[in-house]
Amino acid sequence: MKFTLQHTDQKTKARTGLLETDHGPIETPIFMPVGTAGTVKAVHQRELKEDINAQIILGNTYHLYLRPGLEVIQKAGGLHGFNSWDRPILTDSGGYQVYSLGDNRKITESGVRFKSHIDGSMHDFTPERVMDIQRVIGADIIMAFDECTPYPCDKKYAEDSMHMTHRWLKRCIQQFDTTDPLYGYSQTLFPIVQGSTYPDLRKQSAEFIAEQDREGNAIGGLSVGEPHEDMYAMTELVCDILPADKPRYLMGVGTPENILECIALGVDMFDCVMPTRNARNGMLFTSEGIINIKNEKWKEAYIPIDPALGGYVSTFYTRAYLRHLIMSKEILGAQICSIHNLSFYLWLVKEARVQIKAGNFDAWKTAMVKKVTTRL
Amino acid sequence: MKFTLQHTDQKTKARTGLLETDHGPIETPIFMPVGTAGTVKAVHQRELKEDINAQIILGNTYHLYLRPGLEVIQKAGGLHGFNSWDRPILTDSGGYQVYSLGDNRKITESGVRFKSHIDGSMHDFTPERVMDIQRVIGADIIMAFDECTPYPCDKKYAEDSMHMTHRWLKRCIQQFDTTDPLYGYSQTLFPIVQGSTYPDLRKQSAEFIAEQDREGNAIGGLSVGEPHEDMYAMTELVCDILPADKPRYLMGVGTPENILECIALGVDMFDCVMPTRNARNGMLFTSEGIINIKNEKWKEAYIPIDPALGGYVSTFYTRAYLRHLIMSKEILGAQICSIHNLSFYLWLVKEARVQIKAGNFDAWKTAMVKKVTTRL
Repeated sequence: MKFTLQHTDQKTKARTGLLETDHGPIETPIFMPVGTAGTVKAVHQRELKEDINAQIILGNTYHLYLRPGLEVIQKAGGLHGFNSWDRPILTDSGGYQVYSLGDNRKITESGVRFKSHIDGSMHDFTPERVMDIQRVIGADIIMAFDECTPYPCDKKYAEDSMHMTHRWLKRCIQQFDTTDPLYGYSQTLFPIVQGSTYPDLRKQSAEFIAEQDREGNAIGGLSVGEPHEDMYAMTELVCDILPADKPRYLMGVGTPENILECIALGVDMFDCVMPTRNARNGMLFTSEGIINIKNEKWKEAYIPIDPALGGYVSTFYTRAYLRHLIMSKEILGAQICSIHNLSFYLWLVKEARVQIKAGNFDAWKTAMVKKVTTRL
Repeated sequence: MKFTLQHTDQKTKARTGLLETDHGPIETPIFMPVGTAGTVKAVHQRELKEDINAQIILGNTYHLYLRPGLEVIQKAGGLHGFNSWDRPILTDSGGYQVYSLGDNRKITESGVRFKSHIDGSMHDFTPERVMDIQRVIGADIIMAFDECTPYPCDKKYAEDSMHMTHRWLKRCIQQFDTTDPLYGYSQTLFPIVQGSTYPDLRKQSAEFIAEQDREGNAIGGLSVGEPHEDMYAMTELVCDILPADKPRYLMGVGTPENILECIALGVDMFDCVMPTRNARNGMLFTSEGIINIKNEKWKEAYIPIDPALGGYVSTFYTRAYLRHLIMSKEILGAQICSIHNLSFYLWLVKEARVQIKAGNFDAWKTAMVKKVTTRL
């Protein structure tokens, strides 16, 4: 994997770059649609490419490991072969899912024992095992196995957890660096900064992560319920420590506003279920603001969803028709909203790249944050 | 509307024809995807055109009347304006839905009083009202308001009901012929033959319907649980009476086998929820037979769904991946199966047209019935 930093904004810490993988290039800043179980929910692979312009998608280690299972994926030639997506893929490590399991998991120094949400069976994830699993899934970018702390989190727990995440990282690196990719293309491992909302812990963690000198770095443990100010403060602190010549991935973030603000702090990569999850409930992000399509005011709105975006669904279907579909719980409603919202997120980061290159990012961001936080 | 009979098979009663509407041509025999609430479930309008090659779709009067309601549809310029489908549309009259409501409706000579399945509100459908509603919806082909009898049905009830359906038809015709279309293109009204599974009633009804001399005719009250032999016997009897120079529409039929057999009896138009409803449950119709994609045998089937069909979903996605999606209840699974099954149905009737024109329909049908009834 090769990362080339291309433009750096003068007024903010925003930057553009090019990340080159064996499955093709990724222009940064980028948003990565989430395809938890090997599918971006309600969206065809063709639509991801041609309508949404996705350059990379996510898969989820925990979910794919449980279903369809490693054997099915390996025999297909990895996740790319299994779901027929031939552009880059990133897999998260399962750390976040394990965190979400609550009482159904036990964390020890060795790793995590957890109970499947599908059939109640017991499984063990260790840093080594999670590397092996991600070798089988075969994503271009794989994530270290970490513990994602909740918010709020007392300092003692956050500190102990951070140190364990660091020890786990060393084990991940050891395992990753002594194994080979399975399908003839290379994989890279991103470590994850933790430390909850404690500046001194975040600093310590970021320095530790930077020292590992991997090809890219991630910031985890944010967007778990903390105030936006804390998210921004931690992100800025960490970005200032992580090396500038490597991509920075802020995990699980966020709203369009969050993304714009964090691009300004030096983040290059984002993922979030929000555009697809909210889509299925009829919430639309548009270039003029947020729409709750269930609102009575759209009942006779015979206008396109968001003509400024271009693209099939945003220009073809009317808000009135889409409202009808969502009110009627028709699957097509979820499909249209999902494609639209992802198209918007990819449009937003593309515009950000254009504005950074043009030296106009800061002013554009200010105007755009106002728009994307307006409720229409 | 203009119907031109083009080829008539020598060994069977199959025929090909061209039905011309103000929204474009329809080649017969044709299958019409069902879009109950103004959407063919889980399928984009673009996919209906470009992947499935649908020439006409159905809408449902009962459902559209209740939601989004007539005002929303009328202000959109009819259903075509509302759902952005610019090819022909046929609406059924609500007779079948009213039949399905069971205890939530009361049928009298005047019409039907029924309770909305959405909010419990009470509504009245009369033959006149149903014509007015279908003027507002604005389908190219609209259906008479009839009573669909259940199976089994005692003869007295079937006979009385048939006569009432005939009286309702006269009222439909009176209303239709004294009102104008609302959106600048023409509409045509198809009457419906009833008579349950009683040959003498079916004969009487078909003769009555034929006498009305409308531009096309429909056969209702079949595919409601009767043995296939009864369906075929009634269809044959009725087709032999209905005029040859007008299209014949067999409502709610059916399996691929049913469609092939009824094409051989002289039917030109079909609709059925089966390809989309079964799709959502993982049942696939293919050119080689029926697949239950949930079956363990497809777990590692890294082969396309049905390469013979061509088309995006049938050649792009593997059976193994599709099985995973359906097992995981992922929306994309329903989408893929729906597009595939409809593509298969449209492929089947296209092949039938080709074979009729080539004079090879009978032999092809025999071979194809064997295939489409095989469980893979």
